[in-house]
Amino acid sequence: MLNIDRLYEAVAQRGPVCVGLDTDFSYLPQDFVNKGLSRGENIFNFNKAIIEATKAVAGCYKVQIAYYEALGLDGLLTYKSTLNYLRDAGLPVIADIKRGDIAKTAELYAKAHLDGEFEADFVTLSPYMGLDSIAPYTEYMEKKGKGVFVLCRTSNGGAKDFEYERLADGRHVYDLVGDKVNAMGKGYMGACGYSSIGLVIGGTHIEEAREIRAKYRDSFFLIPGYGAQGGRAEDIAQYLYKGNGGTVNSSRAVLLAWKKQEGVPFDEAAYNECVNMKEAIGGACAEL
Amino acid sequence: MLNIDRLYEAVAQRGPVCVGLDTDFSYLPQDFVNKGLSRGENIFNFNKAIIEATKAVAGCYKVQIAYYEALGLDGLLTYKSTLNYLRDAGLPVIADIKRGDIAKTAELYAKAHLDGEFEADFVTLSPYMGLDSIAPYTEYMEKKGKGVFVLCRTSNGGAKDFEYERLADGRHVYDLVGDKVNAMGKGYMGACGYSSIGLVIGGTHIEEAREIRAKYRDSFFLIPGYGAQGGRAEDIAQYLYKGNGGTVNSSRAVLLAWKKQEGVPFDEAAYNECVNMKEAIGGACAEL
Repeated sequence: MLNIDRLYEAVAQRGPVCVGLDTDFSYLPQDFVNKGLSRGENIFNFNKAIIEATKAVAGCYKVQIAYYEALGLDGLLTYKSTLNYLRDAGLPVIADIKRGDIAKTAELYAKAHLDGEFEADFVTLSPYMGLDSIAPYTEYMEKKGKGVFVLCRTSNGGAKDFEYERLADGRHVYDLVGDKVNAMGKGYMGACGYSSIGLVIGGTHIEEAREIRAKYRDSFFLIPGYGAQGGRAEDIAQYLYKGNGGTVNSSRAVLLAWKKQEGVPFDEAAYNECVNMKEAIGGACAEL
Repeated sequence: MLNIDRLYEAVAQRGPVCVGLDTDFSYLPQDFVNKGLSRGENIFNFNKAIIEATKAVAGCYKVQIAYYEALGLDGLLTYKSTLNYLRDAGLPVIADIKRGDIAKTAELYAKAHLDGEFEADFVTLSPYMGLDSIAPYTEYMEKKGKGVFVLCRTSNGGAKDFEYERLADGRHVYDLVGDKVNAMGKGYMGACGYSSIGLVIGGTHIEEAREIRAKYRDSFFLIPGYGAQGGRAEDIAQYLYKGNGGTVNSSRAVLLAWKKQEGVPFDEAAYNECVNMKEAIGGACAEL
């Protein structure tokens, strides 16, 4: 079964929330930290508790590798352990690595993150160098049902520097990226009607949401920007199609929910936050 | 002393060759491999021998992290050991990581690769998400004299997909990237006349070389594409300024030189290849 089909089913069953395990050591409640363990080991214990608490209400998980690279080998062991824990539990996991390289280098990144010690179900990619920075990953779509999400239109302030610029033909740079990546994806369709090659589309700019959703009907969207970055449930809903076709990432709001829910254990607070987010997006989808 | 000034001096003293330690296990001569050691340990021994053999004729080194990530934690320990070995020897080292992310994620990548366990002197970055994917690295330019090289115009086949497209104002996408990154770099100038924010410029497209060199006079160039990828010494020379202002990467041709020099030990063959490359580029620079 293709991972994109598993992801589609997971979103249908458990909703579009993607819990981002961008776990900084400083996010752990002090009374949870075991001083006899390394930072990485403590983070792994925290991640496990978050996963167990949220897995009934989250469609999938995203692990941002930068948080683990910053802790060196101890962090990367935790990264690996977290991916394995999620995969063993049958929970779809996106490795947020945003790699972008070509030729043998891209082949080795693909091997590392879709087949090696750091195996995930999906990875995120950066398209700057062109479609040949995506092509080496298709081998793992065919052999192992893996998938990718390619950066297209992000919602950070700097996106205006290059992504939002206009081309000679009137399109934005991100339109060109989306058009070419979406076209490439048509060769890797899942039974669910979405491709193994998805797009990263920031959950803001509501005015373009309907157009983008209609234009890339067969691209599954990874949607960052909910909450902290300004994306509202009613905006996000526009990027989904009948409540599916995308997964909405939230990291800090889930991991740090315990700071806003006094007296509630961190895992229960994370669950509550996921439920609130799921209901808010579900409600907004119902109103469309 | 800023690393860009160290790099400039190293190129002035030892030439523009950048040895790429993109070391695949299959590149090691069979009689060099110690079966009692891990792949990573063997690669580290190979890297050390290459470094010792070439350090008199190479300006700097570039380590492509994908080759090490593909070997998991064993590979990443080798990656770390190789960086440490180069830094302990006072040899400038560029970590070819092409990371491209924003906000706290970018801060953590910067910490990981310019200050943490995987500390290098320079890192490569991908600009797709905008200048805020470069800004978090400037802290380490100020605090520790570090530098970055930002992807601008690459010479792979896929570069035509996005980089070479024309904007509404007539510039290519890579011109826009180069212009904005070069402007940003003016805030981080070294004593040598080059900025701590350099550019990755593929060593082909000779017809544009003079224009690019003149336009980005204060940007140091990391130039891939020599040899295997089609860049000739006379092309490459155009991207340098009086034989400096850039470093020219060669990986496979150096690491696998032993396959073309029968009976010559791999480290001596690597040295010979570096000397040939240095002389070819030096000769082409002299003829300009």
